[in-house]
Amino acid sequence: MGDVELIPEPLTRAAFAPFGDVIEVDGAHRMEINNGTTERFHNLAAVDVTSEGGHPLINIFRGQPRPQPICIRTIERHPLGSQAFVPINDLSWLLVVAPPLGAPTANQLRAFRASGKQGVNYRAGVWHHPLIVLEPDHDFIVVDRGGPGDNCDEVQIEGGGAYLAI
Amino acid sequence: MGDVELIPEPLTRAAFAPFGDVIEVDGAHRMEINNGTTERFHNLAAVDVTSEGGHPLINIFRGQPRPQPICIRTIERHPLGSQAFVPINDLSWLLVVAPPLGAPTANQLRAFRASGKQGVNYRAGVWHHPLIVLEPDHDFIVVDRGGPGDNCDEVQIEGGGAYLAI
Repeated sequence: MGDVELIPEPLTRAAFAPFGDVIEVDGAHRMEINNGTTERFHNLAAVDVTSEGGHPLINIFRGQPRPQPICIRTIERHPLGSQAFVPINDLSWLLVVAPPLGAPTANQLRAFRASGKQGVNYRAGVWHHPLIVLEPDHDFIVVDRGGPGDNCDEVQIEGGGAYLAI
Repeated sequence: MGDVELIPEPLTRAAFAPFGDVIEVDGAHRMEINNGTTERFHNLAAVDVTSEGGHPLINIFRGQPRPQPICIRTIERHPLGSQAFVPINDLSWLLVVAPPLGAPTANQLRAFRASGKQGVNYRAGVWHHPLIVLEPDHDFIVVDRGGPGDNCDEVQIEGGGAYLAI
């Protein structure tokens, strides 16, 4: 376990803005369509997946809880594309990010607690920890990039890791 | 109400193949990632949204039930892009489609009943009825096309409508 204790902040659009988008209905641009039988909460994420011959993929990720305390020792980024996660099951989940600079130190990490009605879209190049869920079989729709090129960097946290205070 | 009674079929990949993809975990290509804490059900839909300067959008649609019997009098298509719907709430829903030809007649319509764990991706140009849900506030992640051009044709069903036998 690393020395740094990471305390998750509530996930809000403002707090997450340096890292990408929060995908949620609250506060979104809303349009009424289909003769009033449907509300469209429009364009909730800047999908950026076409560089270097990329194309969008739709996937489902099924996450399982990690042993606690949850230690953050490595972090990854996708330099060629954004990656969106939207929970299907209405269950809270956690995310850990760092600014899109060099390999982060533990002090540069930030943790967020998302509700089960909040997804995120990581901007290309934003460091993020692989999926962290708290309940078994937590499913997410994931929209990311397929195509040529090396689109995953994984590094150790510089100077030791951190653990999530949950 | 139209003369033709439409009986929803169970939604399967084989039955829906002429119209697009079924987005579901069952039968999908599965990869273990994140040191075994996540299963990735990979590339579940052929997202096709970049023609004529288009780009992918992620939206949430919130559907409300229609009065019953549900009459199918009009149908629409998006000639410039695919459109994917994945339910967030685990509730059954209905869809009505027709082959990507001229304006369909009622006899060319096909109806499907999807489970709450099944989404679809309509291929570009496939006729489909706007969202049909059976419970209030049924939310879907929708991945479709943004960008220039006229991407929605809506027509009356040729020779009268149909109604859904549910």
